[in-house]
Amino acid sequence: MFTVSNINEAVAIKKDISEGKVGKAVVIGAGAIGLEMAEALADMWGIETSVVEIADQVLPGIISANVAQMVQHHLKEKEVSLYTGEKVERIEGDTRVRNVITDKRSLEADMVIMAVGVRPNSDLARDAGLRLSPSGAIIVDKRLQSSDPDIYAGGDCVQITNLVTGKPGYYPLGSMANRQGRVIGTNLADGGAEFAGAVGSFVIKLFDISVASSGLSIETAKKEGFDAVSAFVVQFDRAHFYPEKDLIYLELVVEKGTGRVLGIQGVGNTGDGMLARINAVAAILKYRPTIADISNLELPYSPPFSSAMDVLNALANTAENILAGMNRAIEAEQFVEWWKNRKEGETFFLDCRGWGNAGPFVEKYPDHWKNIPQDELKKRIEEVPRDKRIALVCNTGVRSYEAQLILNQMGIKDTYNVQGGMAGLKKYGADL
Amino acid sequence: MFTVSNINEAVAIKKDISEGKVGKAVVIGAGAIGLEMAEALADMWGIETSVVEIADQVLPGIISANVAQMVQHHLKEKEVSLYTGEKVERIEGDTRVRNVITDKRSLEADMVIMAVGVRPNSDLARDAGLRLSPSGAIIVDKRLQSSDPDIYAGGDCVQITNLVTGKPGYYPLGSMANRQGRVIGTNLADGGAEFAGAVGSFVIKLFDISVASSGLSIETAKKEGFDAVSAFVVQFDRAHFYPEKDLIYLELVVEKGTGRVLGIQGVGNTGDGMLARINAVAAILKYRPTIADISNLELPYSPPFSSAMDVLNALANTAENILAGMNRAIEAEQFVEWWKNRKEGETFFLDCRGWGNAGPFVEKYPDHWKNIPQDELKKRIEEVPRDKRIALVCNTGVRSYEAQLILNQMGIKDTYNVQGGMAGLKKYGADL
Repeated sequence: MFTVSNINEAVAIKKDISEGKVGKAVVIGAGAIGLEMAEALADMWGIETSVVEIADQVLPGIISANVAQMVQHHLKEKEVSLYTGEKVERIEGDTRVRNVITDKRSLEADMVIMAVGVRPNSDLARDAGLRLSPSGAIIVDKRLQSSDPDIYAGGDCVQITNLVTGKPGYYPLGSMANRQGRVIGTNLADGGAEFAGAVGSFVIKLFDISVASSGLSIETAKKEGFDAVSAFVVQFDRAHFYPEKDLIYLELVVEKGTGRVLGIQGVGNTGDGMLARINAVAAILKYRPTIADISNLELPYSPPFSSAMDVLNALANTAENILAGMNRAIEAEQFVEWWKNRKEGETFFLDCRGWGNAGPFVEKYPDHWKNIPQDELKKRIEEVPRDKRIALVCNTGVRSYEAQLILNQMGIKDTYNVQGGMAGLKKYGADL
Repeated sequence: MFTVSNINEAVAIKKDISEGKVGKAVVIGAGAIGLEMAEALADMWGIETSVVEIADQVLPGIISANVAQMVQHHLKEKEVSLYTGEKVERIEGDTRVRNVITDKRSLEADMVIMAVGVRPNSDLARDAGLRLSPSGAIIVDKRLQSSDPDIYAGGDCVQITNLVTGKPGYYPLGSMANRQGRVIGTNLADGGAEFAGAVGSFVIKLFDISVASSGLSIETAKKEGFDAVSAFVVQFDRAHFYPEKDLIYLELVVEKGTGRVLGIQGVGNTGDGMLARINAVAAILKYRPTIADISNLELPYSPPFSSAMDVLNALANTAENILAGMNRAIEAEQFVEWWKNRKEGETFFLDCRGWGNAGPFVEKYPDHWKNIPQDELKKRIEEVPRDKRIALVCNTGVRSYEAQLILNQMGIKDTYNVQGGMAGLKKYGADL
C-alpha cells in the first residue's frame, strides 16, 4: 500500500512492479494524482487497474460532470475499471495487500495506491503559533507573510485567495510553489512583490487525451452561489481545410445576467492545442472578463495553428446565444436520458445532417431517428410534429442550432439543440 | 507575375507550377504572405526560391531584428535565398517574366510573386462619401459604424485602434474580419456589441518553425515613443525531465520604469507550444499588464505540457532582473559583433558551462574561448581579467546570469550576459 507523496514511495512502487509482484492494482481516489497513477500502471506497465472514487465522477470539483463523463469514457476505452460513487470500507491482506473492499464490491489487488487528496503539512507552523485556516493551511497576506511578520510561507501549506470567487482557496501545485518562492525571496530582501491568489488552472494527460480547466466548473460555480450556465462546443483546433487537425471539446461557464466568464474546461488530444486555449482564458480570468471579451479574443491566427474564428471565439458566441435565449441547448446527459426512453414517444429525434451522415442512424433506428437536412427543413416542415419535444442533432451542434432558429420562425419552439452534436455524444460514450 | 489576392491568382500559380513551367521563383516582399509563399514554392514544389525585401529584415514591423535573424537563419537552412535591404527596380521579360532586377543584383525568375502589402479596398466607401483615414481605411467607431450611421464596415477596409499604443492601426486579417462580422450583425439588429480594437497578434509556420507575436516588437515600441527594453529567454516547452520536449525562444518587450508589458514574440517548433504562450499574452495585453502579471501568470501545469516555472514566467522574471539592473544582458547581435572582433582583445569570452559542453569550443578557439564552470568561479576568480569587458555564455543564459551575480560580488562589473546562451546563438546562426 502506497501513497504518492515523495520519491521514496515512487521508488518503492517502481521496484515492486518491476519485480513482477503486481498483476492487479487498485487506485483509491480519482483526482489528478490518482488518474495519472492509473494511466502509468495500465499504460506503461500493463497492469490490470481499477480506480475507486467516492464522488460521482472523476476529477470532482475540477471539471464538470459533462467533461468528466468524457474522461470516464476514455478510461473505459483504455480498460481502466472505474468505480465512482463507491466508498472504500477496508483493505485486506497480511504481508501484502490482497483485497480492497468497497461498499459495493471486493476488488483483488497486489498493490493499492492511496491518492485521496493533500492536506497542508503545517504542524511546524502550528507549533510556532502561526494563524491557520480551519483546514490547517497557513494564512498569509498578498506578500505571503504569515501572522508572524518574520515568517513567510508558500507552497502546499498555505491558503490563498481564489480570484474568481474572492474566497479562500487551497492549491497544492508545484507551479504555484515555484512562483510563490520568488515572491517570498523578493520580500525577504525588502522587495514589494505580491502573489494575489489563484484562479485554479489544471491540465493532465490521460492516455490519448488532455484534460484541462481554469476557473470554476458549472457545478462549483452553482455551489459558490453563481446563477451560472454552461456552453459546450466541439470544433477543429485549426482551419478545417488544413490537412492535420483534430477536434477540441470545450465547456465555458458564464454567469447569467452579467455574462461574466467564470471558468473553462475540456478535453483534447495530447498536443498543446488544448493548453493554448486554456492558457488564454486562465490568463484573463482575474480581470473578470465577460463573454464579449472571449468572443473578440484576439488569438494569433493562421491555418496551421487555429481557425479564423477560433474555438474559443465560437464558444463565447454560443454562450451568448444561450444567454440571449436564442439557443435552447441540452447536454449529452439529457440527450442520453431522452434516448433511453425513446419508446415512450415523448421526444422526436431530428438529425439535421445530410443523408450521408444521417442515413446509417435512420436505418439502425427506423422508428426513432428522423432525418431532415437543415437546408430542407423549411419545405419539409410538415414532417416535424408539433406535439412533441424535439431533440436536434448534427455533427457538432452548429447546423442543429440553425435548424432550431428555422423551427422557431415556423412556430415550433419545444426544441432542444444537442451541444457538441454527434461528435460530443461520441466522446461522451452515448450508446447510439 | 502574380499577386496572392484571390483564388483565381492561386489557381493560376498552381497551374503554371504543375505544368512544369517554374524552375526558379522570386517572391517580392518578406511579410507573412511572401514568406508563406516562399515556403510553399520551396518546400512543396521544390522550386529554387528567392525572396527580396526592401526592409533590413523579414517580417518588418511584426518581429524584432533579433527574432527575425532566427527566421532568416532557418530560411537559409532551407535553401531559400533571401535578399533584405534590397529594392526591386524592374522586372524584365516578354510573354513571361525572365529577370528581377534589384539595386544590387539580377535574379532569374520563371515566376514572380508580388507580396508587398495590402491596401484597403475602399473606393466604394470613398464614392459613398464615408470618412477615410489618410491611408484610405474606413474610419469606424467601436460599434464599427462608419461616418454614415446607416453604414457599418469591417475587415480589411477599416481602421481600428491599436490597444497597446492607443493609436489608429490597420489589421487586414481574416480572423479580425470574422469577429467584426458578428459585431456588425449584432448592431445592425439593434444590439450593442463593440469591437474595441486590436493588439496585433500573429503566427505563421515556416518549414520546421513557428513564428509568433503579439503587441509591439522592441523596435516598434521605441518608434512609438516607449522607453522600452527586451528580455530574451530560451527554455524547454515542458518539464525538463519529460521525454519529448523542445526549446522555445521568446522575447518580451517591456517599458522601463512602469514595467508595463508591450509585446511578445518568438520562434518555436511547429507544434502548438508556441501558440499556447502567445495566446496567453495576447489575451491580457489589452488589460495593460506589468511584468509581475506575467511572472505570476497561472498557466495550467503538468510535465507533459509545461514546466512548473513556465517559460513565460521565466521570461518575465528575466525582464524584471534586467529592469532592476541585476542582469546586464546582451543579444546575439552584440555577441556576434564582439566575437568578430575578438582578435582586438577587448572582450573576454567566458563559458560558464561544464567542460563537457565548453571543451570543444576551448579546443577550437584556444586563444579566445575561456571556460570556468559557474560553480568554480569563486575559487578561480584570479583567472578572470579585470581590465576587459566580459561576455558570459552558458547553455541558455541562466548559469551565465548566476556567474554575473558572482562576478558582481567580486567587484568585476563590466560583464554582459548573452541572453538565450549557446542555444540562442545557434538559432541565430552565429558562426561559432
